[in-house]
Amino acid sequence: MEVTNKRILLKDHVVGPAKEGDMVASTETVRLEVPVGSKGVLLKNLYLSCDPYLRTLMNRPLDGQEESGFPPFKPGSVIIGFGVAKVVDTGHPDFKVGDYVWGLTGWEEFTKISNPETLFKIKYTDVPLSYYTGLLGMTGMTAYAGFYEICSPKKGEFVYISAASGAVGQIVGQYAKLMGCYVVGSAGSNEKVNLLKTKFGFDDAFNYKEEHDLAAALKRHFPQGIDIYFENVGGAMLEAVLLNMRDHGRIAVCGMISQYNLEKPEGVHNLFCLVTKRIRMQGFAWFDHSHKYDEFVETTRQHIKEGKIRVRGRHCQRS
Amino acid sequence: MEVTNKRILLKDHVVGPAKEGDMVASTETVRLEVPVGSKGVLLKNLYLSCDPYLRTLMNRPLDGQEESGFPPFKPGSVIIGFGVAKVVDTGHPDFKVGDYVWGLTGWEEFTKISNPETLFKIKYTDVPLSYYTGLLGMTGMTAYAGFYEICSPKKGEFVYISAASGAVGQIVGQYAKLMGCYVVGSAGSNEKVNLLKTKFGFDDAFNYKEEHDLAAALKRHFPQGIDIYFENVGGAMLEAVLLNMRDHGRIAVCGMISQYNLEKPEGVHNLFCLVTKRIRMQGFAWFDHSHKYDEFVETTRQHIKEGKIRVRGRHCQRS
Repeated sequence: MEVTNKRILLKDHVVGPAKEGDMVASTETVRLEVPVGSKGVLLKNLYLSCDPYLRTLMNRPLDGQEESGFPPFKPGSVIIGFGVAKVVDTGHPDFKVGDYVWGLTGWEEFTKISNPETLFKIKYTDVPLSYYTGLLGMTGMTAYAGFYEICSPKKGEFVYISAASGAVGQIVGQYAKLMGCYVVGSAGSNEKVNLLKTKFGFDDAFNYKEEHDLAAALKRHFPQGIDIYFENVGGAMLEAVLLNMRDHGRIAVCGMISQYNLEKPEGVHNLFCLVTKRIRMQGFAWFDHSHKYDEFVETTRQHIKEGKIRVRGRHCQRS
Repeated sequence: MEVTNKRILLKDHVVGPAKEGDMVASTETVRLEVPVGSKGVLLKNLYLSCDPYLRTLMNRPLDGQEESGFPPFKPGSVIIGFGVAKVVDTGHPDFKVGDYVWGLTGWEEFTKISNPETLFKIKYTDVPLSYYTGLLGMTGMTAYAGFYEICSPKKGEFVYISAASGAVGQIVGQYAKLMGCYVVGSAGSNEKVNLLKTKFGFDDAFNYKEEHDLAAALKRHFPQGIDIYFENVGGAMLEAVLLNMRDHGRIAVCGMISQYNLEKPEGVHNLFCLVTKRIRMQGFAWFDHSHKYDEFVETTRQHIKEGKIRVRGRHCQRS
């Protein structure tokens, strides 16, 4: 059966903040079956997630980036991002029609995945399926891997999270509280700050846009210094954090959102603090830790059930 | 007995490259004995080492630096650095008169050390004593800890070292060769480059001052990318290295010499590569690894005896 397939394509490499005009909607047709002999699957996409990292893939590629783990989008091609989908046809023995999956898919109604081993089968459907675009999907797994595998956290440590109300930050903060850390987050509006302090149980939070001296703001919130910084923003915030880190601190570098729309990213000062304070600063990506996914889902699902981890926003069930 | 004690004092905090006038020689007197009941030792200094990190301690202290592991020098006080010395008097049961030691001492003829547990006793005197200011002292131990403990090296990996002909870099390169890595170093003169390729057995080396595009120079030397960067210089070199790192690369941050004389250190771009390539960048200091000192001396001494590690410069024996 052939049906129409509405798709969102990248028009050209993006400069500055992404605008509606940088993308174009196109309607094509797709046959609702995988070719005979294929090991692929055909997905009906149910939820698509718009995540900050997507912006970095819309830039003109840097030297060598084409071959990296993060190849940039090609103009004219469909946007690829994380989503939740239902299997409509399958040539792969591990997937059957009707299975729910999450993973990289297209911003379109139907997507053919030639190597479905990159997809995760959704085992638990007693939570809204949309959770698998966030809390139980890539962003949750990013928080889990970043906090437990990269930050080497210990009870009682001082944890700072930037972009803390974002999909990753809000979960990191809740994991850190579960571990018995002191947790402060920053965000860009008073509404978000309020959310951190009330809904997500952060010990404290501040609106970075209201601070003219970020280093002083951090000093105020962490007079004894920061053991763990969960880095989501980069730039001036990273500079200020470096001055406030404690000896043997750890910085998990998840993203650098403040830089994504800049044509020329800012230079970061104070890196010499890495030496004087013997700091470990480590970039990571969730997929290097995907062997931890089952452990992550089991524990996080349990936390959700027990109300120990809370989710932001409305989620609706579709089928 | 009271004798004269010639000392080198820091006159004031230094701006720009340190000049002779930033220091002042002063002659005082010292009693050649420790007070009754003291657990200290009195040292006759034999060799003093002038190391690049000293420059960083001559700056006006940054906020919080006073309480850090690297407190800056106070104007008017004697310069403190690494040296080799002989015990002249002792109140400490672990040290006897005539012992040779190395560790932090003053730039002066005689130094009273109130807590001699910070000193290392010199066990082997079948090598020139001056080796304990370098190869078998702080800089050698820095190379050892930095390479084996921080870089997580594996046979066959691609290793790049900046300031490679320096006291630390030249040893790191030789350890890396012993491990079976491919090793390239950079230095600031053709004489030094030649030394790296001939005396120290680096696979290749280049004069960074002759390269107008550092990223291109690194690409030429490491077409397949860099697994391990031993960072001694910071600034523009670090920016170029980040572009040339491989996935899961490691950067051991030992120092950032290029920045020490600047009033305002340069900002470093390309840090987003930490995320895309999942790089670990880690500052370290030898003293966090001093439990490895005996192991380091035993193995490195053996390497020297077997001609597997070579030393630069003339060393003379004094008593």
